[in-house]
Amino acid sequence: MAERIALGIEYDGRGFCGWQTQPGGCAIQDHVERALAEIHGVPVHTVTAGRTDAGVHALGQVAHFDALNARPESAWVKGVNAHLPTGISVLWAKPVPSNFDARHRALERAYRYVLLNRPARPAMLAGRVGWVHGALDDQAMAEAASRLLGVHDFSAFRAAECQARSPIRELRRASLTRQGEFLCFEFRANAFLHHQIRNMVGALVWVGLGRRPVEWVSEVLESRNRSLGAATFAPDGLYLVEVRYDASLALPEPSTTMPFFPPHPPLQPPDRPNPP
Amino acid sequence: MAERIALGIEYDGRGFCGWQTQPGGCAIQDHVERALAEIHGVPVHTVTAGRTDAGVHALGQVAHFDALNARPESAWVKGVNAHLPTGISVLWAKPVPSNFDARHRALERAYRYVLLNRPARPAMLAGRVGWVHGALDDQAMAEAASRLLGVHDFSAFRAAECQARSPIRELRRASLTRQGEFLCFEFRANAFLHHQIRNMVGALVWVGLGRRPVEWVSEVLESRNRSLGAATFAPDGLYLVEVRYDASLALPEPSTTMPFFPPHPPLQPPDRPNPP
Repeated sequence: MAERIALGIEYDGRGFCGWQTQPGGCAIQDHVERALAEIHGVPVHTVTAGRTDAGVHALGQVAHFDALNARPESAWVKGVNAHLPTGISVLWAKPVPSNFDARHRALERAYRYVLLNRPARPAMLAGRVGWVHGALDDQAMAEAASRLLGVHDFSAFRAAECQARSPIRELRRASLTRQGEFLCFEFRANAFLHHQIRNMVGALVWVGLGRRPVEWVSEVLESRNRSLGAATFAPDGLYLVEVRYDASLALPEPSTTMPFFPPHPPLQPPDRPNPP
Repeated sequence: MAERIALGIEYDGRGFCGWQTQPGGCAIQDHVERALAEIHGVPVHTVTAGRTDAGVHALGQVAHFDALNARPESAWVKGVNAHLPTGISVLWAKPVPSNFDARHRALERAYRYVLLNRPARPAMLAGRVGWVHGALDDQAMAEAASRLLGVHDFSAFRAAECQARSPIRELRRASLTRQGEFLCFEFRANAFLHHQIRNMVGALVWVGLGRRPVEWVSEVLESRNRSLGAATFAPDGLYLVEVRYDASLALPEPSTTMPFFPPHPPLQPPDRPNPP
């Protein structure tokens, strides 16, 4: 009798070719499945909540697989970690009902994008933060971000290769916080389209740099035309930080400590004279 | 007429064999001097405030050199960075009086040591944080750290290879703060002995794990005997965060934002019944 197991996974996206399995075996999924198979004895297939791109990081990725051979939970964490490369770590393992599905049962995904905003390029955090050397207008970016909230057709922020059947998503949070030279965007939605966050960040940075007015973000959104938007921003600063499921599953909470931004109140966009 | 230039430098200690020049040219000093020479046209020798070990990071390293050929300040930052590998970045450059010396004029060095305290090993921050998987008693560590404050002979925390003439140092701060799974020690002193911080952190972790009582740290200090202490802790979590000079020099302030720990009040050690 197979037992379905959910895993919490953290990884440094650099050095891997994204989550999804690749012929060369360089994907995070490939490494995780190989390490699971070492413990399990026979091949394992995983299903994940967020198929992150190459270079995108995760602090709270969730995946599931079916274990044909029973193992103690510690084997799925410490045992599997002993077979994983340095940049990937299983944080927890928990048996779940057989109808659990890491992808289809996810109620919400939360991503953060961390920008380093200073003249000199990053060294300590190279590959782990986006970089903008010019001055940014945080309030304008917060205001522009708030224009994206709600249920919309996000075609204007969708990669050409996106395989989702519908471009409609519900964006529930689009906030930003600053701590000195670091700026952190947080986005929460039921799900995201391919490149959606990197395309939204690209647009918000253009507003922050004064290249476009706040209203332009609404115009791009309404156009549903990707070619009117900004360039896709680098994957470097993007983190999958949380996947939320029904509370009755009692999956472990993601760490409340982000390495770069401990939780604190986001910058509020200014009051809008004419709420939509 | 030579002009003396001070540089602020950030680096990821992984991938380099420490600050100090090495025959193979793998040291951070070697990379910085080669990049400076590209801009300067002739070889350059640098003097630094802190000769960090292999694997130790810096967010606020300071060095100086003598420029025989004048260059605009932007050349010493953007120009030099164009010749540096990804893990090293010059943050600022500033002309200083000819009697400035990055090493001998430094009034204070500040280091932080970041520990990840959770069961699963680090992935995103592998090589950038120390790791302790067992539960730690933060208050005991804060109390033990406070026992190290003041002017002492730190021979018990000094590496055998240490070349300093005197083992006497003034430790002005030894605090710790916790944010969730992250624990950050901050140490400030006029200067530090070789391996002093990694040896102090090793001892404090033993106290935190309950392997030794708080008083043991005082006993080790007073013994002046390195062999009575704990093992040297990993370099991974150690950051040179600030070097302080006379304010009249008006050197740029180090970033107030640490990637892991924005400034906030440290844990206070409990009141001691019999202050020394």
